[in-house]
Amino acid sequence: MATGDIGLIGLAVMGQNLILNMNDKGFNVVAYNRTTSKVDDFLANEAKGTNVQGAHSIEELCSKLKRPRKIILLVKAGAAVDSFIDQLVPFLEKGDIIIDGGNSHYPDSNRRWKSLEEKGLYFVGSGVSGGEEGARHGPSLMPGGAPEAWAAIKEIFQKTSAQAYGEPCCDWVGEGGAGHYVKMVHNGIEYGDMQLIAEAYDILKRGLGCSEDEIAEIFLKWNTGVLDSFLIEITANILKKKDDDGEPVLNKILDQAGQKGTGKWTAIAALDAGTPVTLIGEAVFARCLSSIKEERVRASQVIPGPQKEAFRGDKALFIDDLEQALYASKIISYTQGFMLMRETAKEQNWNLNYGGIASMWRGGCIIKSVFLKDITSAYTNNPKLESLLFDDFFNQAIAKAQPGWRRVLAQAVLWGIPTPAFSTALSFLDGYRSEILPANLLQAQRDYFGAHTFRVLPGKENERFQSGKDIHVNWTGRGGNVSASTYAA
Amino acid sequence: MATGDIGLIGLAVMGQNLILNMNDKGFNVVAYNRTTSKVDDFLANEAKGTNVQGAHSIEELCSKLKRPRKIILLVKAGAAVDSFIDQLVPFLEKGDIIIDGGNSHYPDSNRRWKSLEEKGLYFVGSGVSGGEEGARHGPSLMPGGAPEAWAAIKEIFQKTSAQAYGEPCCDWVGEGGAGHYVKMVHNGIEYGDMQLIAEAYDILKRGLGCSEDEIAEIFLKWNTGVLDSFLIEITANILKKKDDDGEPVLNKILDQAGQKGTGKWTAIAALDAGTPVTLIGEAVFARCLSSIKEERVRASQVIPGPQKEAFRGDKALFIDDLEQALYASKIISYTQGFMLMRETAKEQNWNLNYGGIASMWRGGCIIKSVFLKDITSAYTNNPKLESLLFDDFFNQAIAKAQPGWRRVLAQAVLWGIPTPAFSTALSFLDGYRSEILPANLLQAQRDYFGAHTFRVLPGKENERFQSGKDIHVNWTGRGGNVSASTYAA
Repeated sequence: MATGDIGLIGLAVMGQNLILNMNDKGFNVVAYNRTTSKVDDFLANEAKGTNVQGAHSIEELCSKLKRPRKIILLVKAGAAVDSFIDQLVPFLEKGDIIIDGGNSHYPDSNRRWKSLEEKGLYFVGSGVSGGEEGARHGPSLMPGGAPEAWAAIKEIFQKTSAQAYGEPCCDWVGEGGAGHYVKMVHNGIEYGDMQLIAEAYDILKRGLGCSEDEIAEIFLKWNTGVLDSFLIEITANILKKKDDDGEPVLNKILDQAGQKGTGKWTAIAALDAGTPVTLIGEAVFARCLSSIKEERVRASQVIPGPQKEAFRGDKALFIDDLEQALYASKIISYTQGFMLMRETAKEQNWNLNYGGIASMWRGGCIIKSVFLKDITSAYTNNPKLESLLFDDFFNQAIAKAQPGWRRVLAQAVLWGIPTPAFSTALSFLDGYRSEILPANLLQAQRDYFGAHTFRVLPGKENERFQSGKDIHVNWTGRGGNVSASTYAA
Repeated sequence: MATGDIGLIGLAVMGQNLILNMNDKGFNVVAYNRTTSKVDDFLANEAKGTNVQGAHSIEELCSKLKRPRKIILLVKAGAAVDSFIDQLVPFLEKGDIIIDGGNSHYPDSNRRWKSLEEKGLYFVGSGVSGGEEGARHGPSLMPGGAPEAWAAIKEIFQKTSAQAYGEPCCDWVGEGGAGHYVKMVHNGIEYGDMQLIAEAYDILKRGLGCSEDEIAEIFLKWNTGVLDSFLIEITANILKKKDDDGEPVLNKILDQAGQKGTGKWTAIAALDAGTPVTLIGEAVFARCLSSIKEERVRASQVIPGPQKEAFRGDKALFIDDLEQALYASKIISYTQGFMLMRETAKEQNWNLNYGGIASMWRGGCIIKSVFLKDITSAYTNNPKLESLLFDDFFNQAIAKAQPGWRRVLAQAVLWGIPTPAFSTALSFLDGYRSEILPANLLQAQRDYFGAHTFRVLPGKENERFQSGKDIHVNWTGRGGNVSASTYAA
């Protein structure tokens, strides 16, 4: 008689912690691992005294699970996922559910969903965020895939996930690869949040000359306001951490950050979707620039910057301005992230629930924050909201933040402190609120050198410039009026 | 008796013009087109009175060519190229050369090079830039592929290409897809150059309130200095062009630019290579933002900007500052583009000749400029130059430009005029010349929430923080000292 509620394959720390978490929530979990000695070790140690059952083969795992079977894979993204799916299929029956909880790229999840559907099985690709700590005590879970599976896994997922503001940080995302897509955007946004905090720290340190302890106090204060979030909190803790010699640990850490992975995927997805997710792009590139440390050291010796001048303004007011700059930039980053999801949902025919997505991120994950509660409200008030900047709350927040944000950036530019993420956020806002951008000149240039044609600006139509027509101008008086549809610049 | 020096397949305007150009230079060209009536039309009209021969089948084309045969494809990138290669192969002999002159993506050229090599044939993938006008009178040609082919095509290519400063705008780029790769970067740089000019125009128009005629005069003046280039020249011409009612044509053009294609490829290649090519990235995203015109119009009605204030400074000095801002940003863009080529060359084992690349771009193409002569000199003086910013000429140019550049950006930020490309260029410079960046905080955060570990900053080593070791700190006092190698954020 099968008694298992859910099976889990892959007993690394994430897998072990997720099993213990599900066990705590009252579910009977069957644990399996390719190297089966790990199953015995786990049962004899971490899982001792729990209801967790072990399995020493895929067949045994499947035989111990109640129908419809639910099996979570927590293995390395890529070939290992396909391999375990292939091993599972012979032991599964119609309606059983395979859940990939790894960091898979969403096109793979699209593919697996379709391939299992043909076999009468249901595939779920679920983002799992929050690291080992989240897995143990409540992660953010972002499941997508076969909608038929949701009813069967909903209770387990929503009880296992983090809870925030009385609601589970888990909801159904959408079909196919939607869960992993949303997880990818989440990770991109995490890159952005981290970069923004790094720029604020740099301005406080190199610009205002604050000590690590002073900066920690500033972050602690910010953590009681609109910026209240996990990342701001841990930044304060990091800033306060001293090595045995009393020097901040932070000052002993090599300033070289890795960037392979989901942040890069998000930026590439944005380019492919034609959506200006500039802040995540700059955050990824900032990590690339950090990584060429030795070249930077050489450059620092030969490229001069502006004369360093002491700050003459009101320090406290400037710090308030900086808080607004960070807050406004963060609003832009999330605005861009939600734009990207909107565009991709159109393309993939996903019916995404944006309020649900924001609510899933309110707890359990690295970007958890009070801010996400406000985003949840914005999309709950208006599920068809075109852009976060059209929501009253964020619209007013941006209006209020602008003057300080602009002062901070003007000052950073004069100081010579790099602010790629702050700057791109402001350029985006100023571009987004521009009825007319100078892209008319780009179109004129393209028509001039390549006969690419352009459209007329509404309100400027006449017999030569007709609405809806591809227009070519003979700019030079020479040459013909031929449009080059195949011109290669 | 075969008398043809070179064959060309694809009689669209680019192909026709390139044939006429090669004919002018004394080469006997055999022309072929899938729809063979086009061959007859061409011979009876544009090619009348020339030495151009026609061919009405692939077999006839090959039979009319001297050994080793040289055949240029100027057809749509993608399946058409493979299809013509397949049609050609049965009629070719060992040592014959197929040249793809289309806008192919470089991985395809890598693949075709290898596949033809197995058949004893030589593949050349050549960037062709300059549009129809360039094809007719001298394009920039960037051939790469099978090095064995270069000696056989060198004379035709270097005589057909544009000439600048007494040298051909054509040189051997490198193996495999190197020619198409360099062409792709060229196009990305073109996106960047155009965006920079658009931002300068926007600042002059919306910031200083200059008329199109005034702006044209400014560009004409700039075209006599360090910015002397084709794009600056045509921008002045565009600004002066009036519609029949006397209004500048530019003001009647819809501000919505397309961005599918090679600019996007370059940004994605940069992300994949982990190289911070931020300016091209922002230029591509700026086009994306321009394309959501209707959303921008709605945003312009609800998102406020700063109060518009009249400019109180010295207008002439500010315009000089703007020239420096444009020049410095352009230096950064090319610095980034050459960084990308350097990184990719390492990865692909290409031995790129950077001076040669710059010299190929000095004439014949959209980005042709005096500036590229200085880049050629920099790499000729030091072929191993690590970065353009380490060259004396550009190092001094950046030092001189910085104060004005910073003033312009600070002003644009306060005005509320978007400067994504100008801003990212300055952030890159300030990051690049930073011995210490705040990426130490990113590493601390990643170690805090995911036990990702970090390295010690040189000079800060002690027994707890050892050089070359992956270090984890127990930031909270809770939890263990386990490093999470498989942590999924």
